[in-house]
Amino acid sequence: MLLKLGGSAITTKEKHFTPDVEAIMRLVEEIKHADVSPLILVHGGGSFGHPVAKQYLINEGYTDSSQIIGFSKTHQAMTVLNNLVVDSLINQGIPAIAVPASSCIITKSGRIESFEKGPLIKMLELGFLPVLYGDAVLDSDIDFTILSGDQLVSSLAMSLNAERIIIGVDVDGLYTADPKTDLSARFIQHITLTELKRLQHRVGEGKVTDVTGGMPRKIQELIPAVEQGVPVIIVNATKPNNIYKALRGQEVVGTEIERA
Amino acid sequence: MLLKLGGSAITTKEKHFTPDVEAIMRLVEEIKHADVSPLILVHGGGSFGHPVAKQYLINEGYTDSSQIIGFSKTHQAMTVLNNLVVDSLINQGIPAIAVPASSCIITKSGRIESFEKGPLIKMLELGFLPVLYGDAVLDSDIDFTILSGDQLVSSLAMSLNAERIIIGVDVDGLYTADPKTDLSARFIQHITLTELKRLQHRVGEGKVTDVTGGMPRKIQELIPAVEQGVPVIIVNATKPNNIYKALRGQEVVGTEIERA
Repeated sequence: MLLKLGGSAITTKEKHFTPDVEAIMRLVEEIKHADVSPLILVHGGGSFGHPVAKQYLINEGYTDSSQIIGFSKTHQAMTVLNNLVVDSLINQGIPAIAVPASSCIITKSGRIESFEKGPLIKMLELGFLPVLYGDAVLDSDIDFTILSGDQLVSSLAMSLNAERIIIGVDVDGLYTADPKTDLSARFIQHITLTELKRLQHRVGEGKVTDVTGGMPRKIQELIPAVEQGVPVIIVNATKPNNIYKALRGQEVVGTEIERA
Repeated sequence: MLLKLGGSAITTKEKHFTPDVEAIMRLVEEIKHADVSPLILVHGGGSFGHPVAKQYLINEGYTDSSQIIGFSKTHQAMTVLNNLVVDSLINQGIPAIAVPASSCIITKSGRIESFEKGPLIKMLELGFLPVLYGDAVLDSDIDFTILSGDQLVSSLAMSLNAERIIIGVDVDGLYTADPKTDLSARFIQHITLTELKRLQHRVGEGKVTDVTGGMPRKIQELIPAVEQGVPVIIVNATKPNNIYKALRGQEVVGTEIERA
């Protein structure tokens, strides 16, 4: 099973380099309590990775030599956040190991081109919990870029044939339109790929504002995994017990996306 | 060029989890000042990795499920030390990036079996300073073990055809016998592989105590690299400017080992 915890669920987005330690500890307890295996955890950057990456335009690839130190700083910021997460897991007795994308993945124009999964697979076999994260990575075309946690999750789910992807964010799930601006917006509890694509098409035509409630890119990344048969459930990780329930396969408020 | 900094040069060996922050900062300044490129830094575990690894017998491979959390703890301890080193380098403006062996290497009975070097090579091309370290790694035969920084250095030097290996330790170099117990012990400034092997042979016959002054395993790891034509220089990294001089190729007190 794959669990993605968005940066917004584990950091305070408004303040740079501020982890939400309370949330991290609660989420770690939920993971411990759910006790599912094999499990891979992928987390986002939130207020750690994003500000530095943005400052040095790491996402856009190499344009200037001053970005080189920026790449190091971006990765190092992510390492600090990742260390907090891994430390919390180990303190709860969960054998977590960090697997930085920067040391086993190369992208090509931002898409994963090669991914050495040998150590990761061996970790899963032995009962470890590998912890990956959105990271600054080397790129064969543009020298470097940012690899999102969402692309990582989707790629891992497909190559390891995951049972399910759980996406923990700071909203309840998907709506038929932006609930903040559109009174007709309805919460989506379950949606098939065909229905999702039809809704996305309507977005294109300007008939609905944003089917994914601000998550279009996230959804775009996950669609290939759903197409391959891996169901996705989006839940609010900031609300207690949602991640626990999703991990246990229990009923939970959220949006389930399935192939059919 | 490859620089190995032994755990004894960057940590206080007597006290668990105690970095020698002053030494780390001085060594980082020497690296900065020397300004050589391409360069890979490999560091040891000292009082961080060793005590945990020993407690859980990680070196001996899987024998008991209680070792699993021990593996995580060993790697995490090394991560803490590595973070200190990488942070110090970045603070001096050096674009360092950690490359944990656990996420790109698999050993077979303790010897490197596969090593995904793609990201590392790309880092060197772009002017980064990759930082590796002795680490708990997955093993295809015995499930896991400890990969020493010395094996890492030797393997990297051979596959990347390094110009030179600099080994920074807490002694001045090699002696013809143990200088603490043998009055006839002489310091070795330069030695060829043939002479080294002859001396090692005499150790076997019990005619000299320990040609490497307590470093037999370290030397054993480095011999294949020397055989392939990579010269090794062993210097005392606890004495100021030795690492700087060795990096610059200047004359320095130490032991040089060459093929012929």
